[in-house]
Amino acid sequence: MKSKTIVLGAIAATFLLPVYVSGRVTDYVDPKIGSEGLGRVFIGPSHPFGMVKPSPDCTPSPNSGWLPMPVRVDGFSQVHVSGTGGGPKYGNISIMPFCGEGAMSSTTHYDTRRDEEISLGYYSTTLNGSGIRVEATTAPRTAVYRITYPKSAPEKGLAVDAGFFLGESPVPDAREAQQLVGSQVEIVGDNAVQGYSRIRGGWNNGRAYTVYFYAETSVPFTTAATWRNSEIGSERSRADHGDKTGALLEFADGTSSVEVRVGISFLSELKARENAMNDTQDKNFDAVLAGLIDSWEGLLNRIELGPSATEAQKRMFYTALYHTMIMPADRTGENPLWNDPMPYYDDFYAIWDTYRTSMPLITLIDPVRQAEIVNSLVNIGRRDGYMPDARSGNANGRTQGGSNAEIVIADAFAKKLPGVDYEAALQAMLKDATVDPGGNHEAEGRGGLTEYLALGYVPHGIDRAGNRTVEYSFCDWAIAQVAKGLGHNDLYDRYMKQSGSWRNLWRKDYEHDGARGFIMPRDRDGNWLDSIPYGHSRLVKPKFEYTPLTFEGPWYTPWWSMFFYEASSWEYSLSIPHDVPGLIEICGGPDAMRSRLDTFFDKNYFNVNNEPSFLSPCLYHWLGRPDLTSERVADILAENYSDTPAGLPGNDDSGAMSSWLAFHMTGLYPNAGHDYYLIHSPVLESTTFHLADGKDFTIRAIDFSPENRYIVSATLNGRDYPWSTISHADISAGGVLELKMGAAPASWGKQMWPDKN
Amino acid sequence: MKSKTIVLGAIAATFLLPVYVSGRVTDYVDPKIGSEGLGRVFIGPSHPFGMVKPSPDCTPSPNSGWLPMPVRVDGFSQVHVSGTGGGPKYGNISIMPFCGEGAMSSTTHYDTRRDEEISLGYYSTTLNGSGIRVEATTAPRTAVYRITYPKSAPEKGLAVDAGFFLGESPVPDAREAQQLVGSQVEIVGDNAVQGYSRIRGGWNNGRAYTVYFYAETSVPFTTAATWRNSEIGSERSRADHGDKTGALLEFADGTSSVEVRVGISFLSELKARENAMNDTQDKNFDAVLAGLIDSWEGLLNRIELGPSATEAQKRMFYTALYHTMIMPADRTGENPLWNDPMPYYDDFYAIWDTYRTSMPLITLIDPVRQAEIVNSLVNIGRRDGYMPDARSGNANGRTQGGSNAEIVIADAFAKKLPGVDYEAALQAMLKDATVDPGGNHEAEGRGGLTEYLALGYVPHGIDRAGNRTVEYSFCDWAIAQVAKGLGHNDLYDRYMKQSGSWRNLWRKDYEHDGARGFIMPRDRDGNWLDSIPYGHSRLVKPKFEYTPLTFEGPWYTPWWSMFFYEASSWEYSLSIPHDVPGLIEICGGPDAMRSRLDTFFDKNYFNVNNEPSFLSPCLYHWLGRPDLTSERVADILAENYSDTPAGLPGNDDSGAMSSWLAFHMTGLYPNAGHDYYLIHSPVLESTTFHLADGKDFTIRAIDFSPENRYIVSATLNGRDYPWSTISHADISAGGVLELKMGAAPASWGKQMWPDKN
Repeated sequence: MKSKTIVLGAIAATFLLPVYVSGRVTDYVDPKIGSEGLGRVFIGPSHPFGMVKPSPDCTPSPNSGWLPMPVRVDGFSQVHVSGTGGGPKYGNISIMPFCGEGAMSSTTHYDTRRDEEISLGYYSTTLNGSGIRVEATTAPRTAVYRITYPKSAPEKGLAVDAGFFLGESPVPDAREAQQLVGSQVEIVGDNAVQGYSRIRGGWNNGRAYTVYFYAETSVPFTTAATWRNSEIGSERSRADHGDKTGALLEFADGTSSVEVRVGISFLSELKARENAMNDTQDKNFDAVLAGLIDSWEGLLNRIELGPSATEAQKRMFYTALYHTMIMPADRTGENPLWNDPMPYYDDFYAIWDTYRTSMPLITLIDPVRQAEIVNSLVNIGRRDGYMPDARSGNANGRTQGGSNAEIVIADAFAKKLPGVDYEAALQAMLKDATVDPGGNHEAEGRGGLTEYLALGYVPHGIDRAGNRTVEYSFCDWAIAQVAKGLGHNDLYDRYMKQSGSWRNLWRKDYEHDGARGFIMPRDRDGNWLDSIPYGHSRLVKPKFEYTPLTFEGPWYTPWWSMFFYEASSWEYSLSIPHDVPGLIEICGGPDAMRSRLDTFFDKNYFNVNNEPSFLSPCLYHWLGRPDLTSERVADILAENYSDTPAGLPGNDDSGAMSSWLAFHMTGLYPNAGHDYYLIHSPVLESTTFHLADGKDFTIRAIDFSPENRYIVSATLNGRDYPWSTISHADISAGGVLELKMGAAPASWGKQMWPDKN
Repeated sequence: MKSKTIVLGAIAATFLLPVYVSGRVTDYVDPKIGSEGLGRVFIGPSHPFGMVKPSPDCTPSPNSGWLPMPVRVDGFSQVHVSGTGGGPKYGNISIMPFCGEGAMSSTTHYDTRRDEEISLGYYSTTLNGSGIRVEATTAPRTAVYRITYPKSAPEKGLAVDAGFFLGESPVPDAREAQQLVGSQVEIVGDNAVQGYSRIRGGWNNGRAYTVYFYAETSVPFTTAATWRNSEIGSERSRADHGDKTGALLEFADGTSSVEVRVGISFLSELKARENAMNDTQDKNFDAVLAGLIDSWEGLLNRIELGPSATEAQKRMFYTALYHTMIMPADRTGENPLWNDPMPYYDDFYAIWDTYRTSMPLITLIDPVRQAEIVNSLVNIGRRDGYMPDARSGNANGRTQGGSNAEIVIADAFAKKLPGVDYEAALQAMLKDATVDPGGNHEAEGRGGLTEYLALGYVPHGIDRAGNRTVEYSFCDWAIAQVAKGLGHNDLYDRYMKQSGSWRNLWRKDYEHDGARGFIMPRDRDGNWLDSIPYGHSRLVKPKFEYTPLTFEGPWYTPWWSMFFYEASSWEYSLSIPHDVPGLIEICGGPDAMRSRLDTFFDKNYFNVNNEPSFLSPCLYHWLGRPDLTSERVADILAENYSDTPAGLPGNDDSGAMSSWLAFHMTGLYPNAGHDYYLIHSPVLESTTFHLADGKDFTIRAIDFSPENRYIVSATLNGRDYPWSTISHADISAGGVLELKMGAAPASWGKQMWPDKN
């Protein structure tokens, strides 16, 4: 293991960096970090938690719209998600400028790109075929484009495609494919088009959602046509017949530049129009862009880095914060399902990903926002039946674990997040824990709950029996914590007991690669399964051997039907965040755990690109060895993260990867649902949190250097601080945590927190 | 027991009857039959299975909109249901004409009525306060009004209220209350307004649905205003802010008459406009009305009554047919949830009510329509997860039994209804029978299925344990029949066995009023319960005694939580339509059953006003005594049905009561799911079914007179027919069933069908 700070700097130096002259932290945000490789981040402009996210769509297949050149551009649609896997969602209401002889006779205008520029709030490219320059920015609910046409080109125009969406499949009912329900367009006067796109399906197999638009051009068009499927005509409107529809707008010959604002709403075209007017008023493209940058500047400045932070570190850190705060989408006032004064957020995608670090990071930066998010979860539970485990397009689904919104609530409760009705939240948690979702288990709730309650574990034969058991145990613990805090001691006792259910899948005599005891498949009768049947044939019952390293099943058995979702037993057998001491004991004690963890990392059983292993590098803390945590974290960061387009090692999952990175760079790491953060050697010499109530909290490394990799002592507000965790309350109170660094491990941090008396 | 034919005629004669000069059967339809008392039928104009059903709304509380004078009229809204109980649904997009000083300054224009006229396709009244005459008719998807103003009145205008709906509660979250999600209006030119109403909740606790409208006036308005809540202004539009909105349109002083067409769509305003144009083209009010009458005339003429039918009988019979065919609503092409070529019907309200006689009657009159209905059920199952047990506003819910759509399919299969993919239908049935709906059990699927499969019955503690067990047994039988017909013998064996599950709640030693053996509550451990705990207090556990006559629980324990839904054990212990011989045996044999049935009817344990007892009067057939069936049926008809406004003894439930009446008047009665009809003494001397393929089937009573109450012999196509049932195939083949009547019971019909060899 080598010093990682140096390595990070070295990686950054190999790339061309913009010159930062403005002193704005937003200049350090590079939306391209994580856009190539597995990251899949959204690269277009977005306000914080913005409802509208315009981006080029490079073919109808990429999840976030964009793909690297030379892939073609189909158009620029207005709604996207960031960092997701599985089938795409959204990609609604595409616009595409065009010019050239006969261009008004075609509904499609694919083109390739050159001179692409991507920065916070701004996207631009020149289309090779047409020579048109397209620039995009956005207000919270209105995308704004500036289109510059080649001066002499004929038939300068704009296609507004209400029928476009991402993830269309030639097999319309393909699992996770988005499916057209209907679309509609209507020419309104001489400078506007309105309509909608109604789509169902996608990754979460959601019910139909409708994206309404009102697109207004700064220059009147001289000709307008509309289309239904491939037929183009002079009709002013195309009512919804379940077809793809769109409009072709042509501008006068002399037109050089057109600004287009595309107001979006989930309620109606009129509301989309109102959103466009309210969002942008008389502002031009540049003014809208400036407003977007201002909104991020204020938010990102809440965490300030010390002067020694390198450009690469600042780029990684602020981009990570940015990525953490573009989802979920704030759709308050845009809910077509019910009507009450509560905030409404959509695109929890998925809470299984974001509860661990994204939500805790938002809590630190913007607790008011996090309270809104929590309230929207509880309210969705009240109005829709269950809180989401994931939600998009106004529909719950899919469950990965089942009910991890419970951890989000427990995290808020532990951190005393104000503005939440925790009794109501507890009721929503208890719904998850007591009412089996039955046939709706892919969409919400705890699938297999009946069996979990009867047997103490989810047996083989029910999808994702392994991680469901583990995660329900953690969620039960979350319920217990909230119940206890609210004085419901009977509930506390019941759910604390139930939170040990993961032990019922602990196969204690199972040995693998020096480790003893693993969470393994078990049938309804209590038998351990060394091999697992798969497939649905009633004649042949093929089996495959299941070991602690089994990841995917044969013939690409879908993740949804595996024992563990997107992980191995090596990973999940270390993922008991609510009872690490119990885990250490059942693993054979501290020495056995030390050995097990070393094997886990040294043999790459650790999976850096997915969330189940997020906490694992910090487990050394519970062995009294935060120095080992520091080594592992530094190593993982250096080898997997950078400020390049491939700088995220896995799907960013609405900022999950990014927030994991940001926390570790500061030297703090949360254990979601708990009121403390684990302290390890920071990547950044100094980080100051400008807290909501005006207080500041600073983490500062003393004798910070590449060689001094270990914390040897610490003080909190000048007083000796020998513990390896710090409470949220201590951070909220403001102050300074000084970490004295040294070249060799020391005795600091052997104990995680003060003895409780 | 007296002759019923005479009594029916006597009742009819006491009312003023219209003079029938046209010879049209539609003249015999009186939409007011069943409109007062419990019937709750819809009295406004409707096409067969029409999507649009305009009616005055007399306060925002009645289920079908209308109430008898002197109750005030709030306005005329465009979507209603017929014959329902529980919380109201729909009542969207209300219009109300007004005049008088200051009328343009008010959003509400309540008025009282005089001179109300109600006939098929036509409603009119004069408003007392304003003196305005309002006439209403409708096309399938467009309501048409003719408004005649008092000549000299000032401020003649029309309010278009997008925020109105039925069933609003001062407690917005009240169970079964409809709740506003949002509404919107927009003035379009000088003669049209468009917008929508988005509502959730109502009887089925459904998700939000949206009713779009495009209302066009035949005379341009001179002034237009819009409102949001109580604020009126000159804005041309009111975008959706979750508020009530509407428009006020004022016509020029000299205006005397205005026609208004209100196109409706569940997709968009543009589609509503297109529906208005396509539906009405350049037709005026009278032409639209004529078209409506024509569409019914063709349909109702498919059943022809012999010349001896009295006016009252014709009024009762054709009105019953009419009531059977105004729901479910044909919304093909208007589905906002998915997009495929299958038909789409909504407002199955509820199948628990309609599977017994409504669906079989539609099958006889219009098999093409019934195939569309069945296909839409199967497709809802495929796209939405489960077939509905009830559905309204594009949302499944609520379950009364759980999965009675299975009976509808079995009925279609038994009758060889063409145009249905029965393998796909079987899959939808099996979904019901194998996948517990969990927390969604109020909306769809078989609640308590897990326990039903494990124990063989639904135990006490799960809502509606009694009728769920009985109905799941019947539904299992339905699955077995379809499976067998499709060659799936293993499924047949399994589900036939399971169809005996009702026996597991048969408490054989329980005696009550001379009968022995009743379906009674049983707990999970198999114990019979003589008293039932109720309420949710954790401190007190009050109980009430449960007997075979218990109907409601104390403190109005909701039906949803009772052992039987809307019925007693006396009723449900006779409701085993799929195994009447088994029921007779378990009741102690034919003599015990005879005695039990006599007690049931003589002591009024029979409940004429609800569906669970529908088949009971015919149970005498299985004792070889169709003469007793005839007596009971004649008695029940005479005492409970008439051609008066109070002529239906219970909620018509989308035509359930009406279709029960119509069948019995002909002398045939279906046992839904089976391929036969029970034959008893007809009320009508002669009934001819003009079948879909051009064949005719006639039932004709010979020696028909009030005294000759019994069938003494019968012939089918001239050949002796000694059996008391006739198969659907025999009817479909066309022919004549002659029933020779006599004054005393004879030996005819001792056997139900020929011996099978």
